Amino acid sequence: MLKGQQTWKFQHPPVIIGTSAIVGPEEGQGPLATDFDLIHEQLDLQEQTWEKAERKLLEQATHMAITKANLTANHIDYFIGGDLLNQIISNSFAARSLNMPFIGVFGACSTSMESLALAALLIDSGNADYALAATCSHNCTVEKQFRYPTEYGAQKPPTAQFTVTGAGAAVISSRGTGPRVTSATIGKVMDMGLKDPFNMGGAMAPAAADTIRTHLHDTGRKPEDYDLIVTGDLASVGHPIVKDLLKKTKIYIDNTTFNDCGLMVFDIEKQAVQAGGSGSACSAVVTYGHILKRMNKGELKRVLIVATGALLSPLSYQQGESIPCIAHAVSIEMD
Amino acid sequence: MLKGQQTWKFQHPPVIIGTSAIVGPEEGQGPLATDFDLIHEQLDLQEQTWEKAERKLLEQATHMAITKANLTANHIDYFIGGDLLNQIISNSFAARSLNMPFIGVFGACSTSMESLALAALLIDSGNADYALAATCSHNCTVEKQFRYPTEYGAQKPPTAQFTVTGAGAAVISSRGTGPRVTSATIGKVMDMGLKDPFNMGGAMAPAAADTIRTHLHDTGRKPEDYDLIVTGDLASVGHPIVKDLLKKTKIYIDNTTFNDCGLMVFDIEKQAVQAGGSGSACSAVVTYGHILKRMNKGELKRVLIVATGALLSPLSYQQGESIPCIAHAVSIEMD
Repeated sequence: MLKGQQTWKFQHPPVIIGTSAIVGPEEGQGPLATDFDLIHEQLDLQEQTWEKAERKLLEQATHMAITKANLTANHIDYFIGGDLLNQIISNSFAARSLNMPFIGVFGACSTSMESLALAALLIDSGNADYALAATCSHNCTVEKQFRYPTEYGAQKPPTAQFTVTGAGAAVISSRGTGPRVTSATIGKVMDMGLKDPFNMGGAMAPAAADTIRTHLHDTGRKPEDYDLIVTGDLASVGHPIVKDLLKKTKIYIDNTTFNDCGLMVFDIEKQAVQAGGSGSACSAVVTYGHILKRMNKGELKRVLIVATGALLSPLSYQQGESIPCIAHAVSIEMD
Repeated sequence: MLKGQQTWKFQHPPVIIGTSAIVGPEEGQGPLATDFDLIHEQLDLQEQTWEKAERKLLEQATHMAITKANLTANHIDYFIGGDLLNQIISNSFAARSLNMPFIGVFGACSTSMESLALAALLIDSGNADYALAATCSHNCTVEKQFRYPTEYGAQKPPTAQFTVTGAGAAVISSRGTGPRVTSATIGKVMDMGLKDPFNMGGAMAPAAADTIRTHLHDTGRKPEDYDLIVTGDLASVGHPIVKDLLKKTKIYIDNTTFNDCGLMVFDIEKQAVQAGGSGSACSAVVTYGHILKRMNKGELKRVLIVATGALLSPLSYQQGESIPCIAHAVSIEMD
């Protein structure tokens, strides 16, 4: 490797052979509804607790991705996943029922691309034939854990974001045809001192800008080399900031090329989602549902997914800490 | 790879070029005291909160491991780490000050070997020259988060374990001489239905047995091929169980070869630690402090560290769930 690089360039780019995107009712009324594999009309999925509903979303998504890859669970060599819940219980409990070697990760809302990057590394290095990357989030578990139980009906400022209820999964393989994971850029933790947990997009924007800049530097690419560059969940407050930050270092990404999963998953003019979507599932369902469908249709050739994560906890906030953020980028390309 | 294997056999086994083990007062009175690099006499490390004290332990350990490797922070390509706190804030905040590309992981007390395995994979696959793996735990943060604040003075049953206050870190490299990370076995989640969070050792024993069995199968090795096999933190309840479970599948490990970090770090007859040590730091400080010192002295040639983790959360326990457990094993060998 070249010293000082943060990007893994895969020599044998793994193929994404099966994906799934399952969402809740609010996402099912958004502009990407037709791209999702399953839309739950009820937030509780007929489970006794929100946490069990979230786990069920993940279990459904992982099984669906495996089925769509024409495989069964025992073909999968490694499952890599994480979520926002304390001790990533959605993934740990799903891993119990999946009965696969499990690598638990935590990157908050950047988990989608952290897990996909590691899965691709396992395939590329010859240590796996098939790997599963997945993540999930649920609006009610996250509100309860990080803010207030939704039953309180607490008001929110317009900079707040709406956690996506959903789960996304991808099965990748050393063989096959289709979209390939060609490189992954692992981000550094950035913290500009913002302390407001109701403005995550603003807090995460510098991490996204840094990772995009690093990715372009490490790969020698320009923004024009991509048909689409999406940030994870910066939404209407954070996405303009990342554009400004990139402009300051003379990186210009055309508006038609640059988007944000938090802005894509909801219609922020019509839906009561404040600044837009967030949560681990946000970039996962947009990527594994919408973007990969567009790639498979031939509408997009090269995309860069820059999943962003705010690494705070309620306790770190209560202790007066600012919000450390990170972004991991994965490039996906059609042959 | 061979189908169905869970073990990464490194073609270019990374060298462990610098380690550190920093502990608190109780560990400093245990039998391994002389092997630790720094013993804090005060649990608070002069910080305002237990969480900030835990983070300080980790920051000190990472800086010390880098210094002992004769490097500076900007040589390190990737930092891989996690801890027991919600949203792994000790590691995320330490990653902010370390300013390195960061891969956050969660494996509860198995994090020590999960992070070392991934660090070794990065080196072996040619994606890094130097990688840092680290973890930490603090008795007071963990008691507060998972059980009761220590200030309550709650009583405990004898099956309970005492969370190690400490941090351990390792810098590994593609070059150099010394102990090498030769393979890593990634565990599956096992759950035999135990629900008692005051008997973690019993809950984790089946995961340890499964990973040891898988490691021996995948590598074609016998227990006698190792000078030492240690489980992470099964302590006096769980360690006899793992022996029994292994015997049932005709795997016999000699008592002089088989030990447990939770039994090694404390004198369970003399110290008020119930069944023994636990916590992410337990296997980390015993491995990076004691075991690697013995390897460097030539007393041990081949060791297998089987770090165990209980993947529950207080919420999963409150919702009546049993305790899913995992174990990841890493073999370390002298040239």
